[in-house]
Amino acid sequence: MLTCDACGRTAESGQRCDDCGEPLWFDTDPDGVAWPDRDGVWAFGDLLPVEPPPGGLAAAAGATPLVRASGLDAGGARVHVKIEGTNPTGSFKDRGSAVGVAAAVADGEGGATFAGDGAPDAVGTVSHGNMAVSMAAHGASTDLECVVLVPADISAARLRRIAAYDPRIVRVDGDYGRLYYDALDLGPESGIEFVNSDSPLRVAGQKTTVLEVLRAFATGEAGGGVGGGERGTTEAAPDVPDAVVMPISSGGHASAAWKAVREATAAGLVDDPPRLYFVQAAACAPVAAAFERGDDAVTRLEGEEVGETVAYSIANPDPPSGTRALAAARATDGAALAVDDDAIHAARRDLVAAGIRVEPASATPLAGLRRLRERGAVDAGEHVVLVATGVGYGGTDGGDGRSGSLDVETVPRSGLAAALGLGDAGE
Amino acid sequence: MLTCDACGRTAESGQRCDDCGEPLWFDTDPDGVAWPDRDGVWAFGDLLPVEPPPGGLAAAAGATPLVRASGLDAGGARVHVKIEGTNPTGSFKDRGSAVGVAAAVADGEGGATFAGDGAPDAVGTVSHGNMAVSMAAHGASTDLECVVLVPADISAARLRRIAAYDPRIVRVDGDYGRLYYDALDLGPESGIEFVNSDSPLRVAGQKTTVLEVLRAFATGEAGGGVGGGERGTTEAAPDVPDAVVMPISSGGHASAAWKAVREATAAGLVDDPPRLYFVQAAACAPVAAAFERGDDAVTRLEGEEVGETVAYSIANPDPPSGTRALAAARATDGAALAVDDDAIHAARRDLVAAGIRVEPASATPLAGLRRLRERGAVDAGEHVVLVATGVGYGGTDGGDGRSGSLDVETVPRSGLAAALGLGDAGE
Ligand SMILES: [Zn+2]
Ligand SMILES: [Zn+2]
Repeated sequence: MLTCDACGRTAESGQRCDDCGEPLWFDTDPDGVAWPDRDGVWAFGDLLPVEPPPGGLAAAAGATPLVRASGLDAGGARVHVKIEGTNPTGSFKDRGSAVGVAAAVADGEGGATFAGDGAPDAVGTVSHGNMAVSMAAHGASTDLECVVLVPADISAARLRRIAAYDPRIVRVDGDYGRLYYDALDLGPESGIEFVNSDSPLRVAGQKTTVLEVLRAFATGEAGGGVGGGERGTTEAAPDVPDAVVMPISSGGHASAAWKAVREATAAGLVDDPPRLYFVQAAACAPVAAAFERGDDAVTRLEGEEVGETVAYSIANPDPPSGTRALAAARATDGAALAVDDDAIHAARRDLVAAGIRVEPASATPLAGLRRLRERGAVDAGEHVVLVATGVGYGGTDGGDGRSGSLDVETVPRSGLAAALGLGDAGE
Repeated sequence: MLTCDACGRTAESGQRCDDCGEPLWFDTDPDGVAWPDRDGVWAFGDLLPVEPPPGGLAAAAGATPLVRASGLDAGGARVHVKIEGTNPTGSFKDRGSAVGVAAAVADGEGGATFAGDGAPDAVGTVSHGNMAVSMAAHGASTDLECVVLVPADISAARLRRIAAYDPRIVRVDGDYGRLYYDALDLGPESGIEFVNSDSPLRVAGQKTTVLEVLRAFATGEAGGGVGGGERGTTEAAPDVPDAVVMPISSGGHASAAWKAVREATAAGLVDDPPRLYFVQAAACAPVAAAFERGDDAVTRLEGEEVGETVAYSIANPDPPSGTRALAAARATDGAALAVDDDAIHAARRDLVAAGIRVEPASATPLAGLRRLRERGAVDAGEHVVLVATGVGYGGTDGGDGRSGSLDVETVPRSGLAAALGLGDAGE
């Protein structure tokens, strides 16, 4: 069963609320749930809507290191880094892909998460970045076909990186931002279980990032880590971090973080939940802007309002879970904020100099923490977790052992339904 | 205390036997050691020569996924893949770096692994690949300087990849293969704790790859995994894998695998130890050649005997632990073997198509298993672990957020001692 957290409507399947349009969440029963004795997506199976598949890369997702990085402490605030780049394809996206693909496999065996008739023939996603790579890899590890919708002008390097796993790639010519919704419309009929950035399945998997963080603090495992500035600092970490800072793009990971905090609190595993802070690049910061204006909803940025940023992988002008993220920031006494590219560059250099290589988007939490510390939103002595979402392969290291040309179909957006085998049915 | 496994001589410090020249191993006391309840380098602390450091990337090393990959099964042999690319810098080298840097920190605080007088001022390594990246990152995460000796003709891309962590890089003009021994000679006097590919500290850390594999089988955790060919295969894995197949370059990881198997057997944790197979690229296969000839020692390949191979990162013509690896292969009823580049390319494509991205060198175990299966050395129904040693960043994705020129000193090999501050003392 799924519920819309915004209006309370429930649904048996689907991804967004039929009434208010907000994303649905899977219901869980946190009552009596205890911390597992280890990390990993499936360690939190009591809070997941599906069983792990018998095969699949799913088994390898999660269980990423959380390290104390005293060399990165910001004005006395204690920094811990959750290194999501150690997931199988290099980003937190593997957590959501694991659950999404598991559900598609289970639906084929009588499960009940797919909104279409019968079992899905394929999994799919709309992405030309980490999520595309992750879904293609997880799809490749099962019998399910994987369909990846990319923009027509995708770079050859990115295309090669995705194509290495041999999914079906469809280049779509047209408004790429709308493809998210096109996929939701076409998925059930076309037999494709689309696991987009904030789909209920993906959110379920991605909430394990913060569940692992909370578990590590609760069980006393947090605190091991990266020295540098203050070698020998073995100060004990508290039972709960004071704050978690993460990048925000679609809002799917932010939504998942909030769900994790709420479920852990409902289970009685966390007393005083952490504040959640979501960081964007200043060039494309619709969530931060809405937060600062005091708006209840995020307003889509139009073309001319969007600038270039080194943190390209989180530059989403129309975040489908942006409004959910706003609610999460306010409910936890956190914030959404923006940082400029100079601050992102500096933060990234400092992370690498502490031994932690990240893509630019994953440096925004450190840049954000520095701003928060300056304006007094975070205090000296507080323990703060920065979620380093991915290592980034740069999209330029094509050497995947494949040769030959990449013949990839390109269709206009209006022709997508036909390309997915629906004739005009989906129009 | 260290012991030479070849001749039995013991030593208080140092890296190679003063009598026979073979690498030393740290003594351990496996008596009464039980399987820990989790993975990770430090989970096996009872078998390590040093305590984990209070800070450092060390805490994040190991605990990599072991997945059942039925889509890669070879003639009925059941394939499991140990995905070492999920280590913090993308390869198994992080395991050895973790222990090496921990020891250098401990030596500075009264430990006893450094062969020089007093405490080391720095850690160092001789590498222009994964090991250089790993040591630079682990060094960066502590207060210790890191010195990396690279060949003068290193590519700009590799140099950038290492330089991102800001170690001291010295390009050395001259016979790069001899630098391994130069570093051993100069290390103690120059105050640098060199953690080379088969140093006793690195071997101690790297043995945790196979300890984790053995633990997973012994505790029943093995078996989750990557489907594809046979979705739904949930056949239970045995208590011990029948064989472990890994690439071999210097022989340091092979040596570590053997030590792991011997320690687990001595502790009574393993009854019937796995056979160990070591795979080289045919273009540079001195260990395989020595194995096939029945030699007791590996003969160094001279320049004209070495060809080009896509598995460049394991093309070592003079493996310093090659003789140890030969002994390991024979003692476990395994083998050393070579595979050609076509077989490596095919294996890599198949690994990626199963969702597991690896560098070419890490595809050699699958290519090797296929040869072993063909010649009947591995039987249908046997459970075989392939060690996928690293993901490989290609050395071409410079975008580490650093700009500006890379001013790196270059010295002739004869000038290395002076460059390390020794005047003529080390000559
Ligand atoms: Zn609603
Ligand atoms: Zn000896």
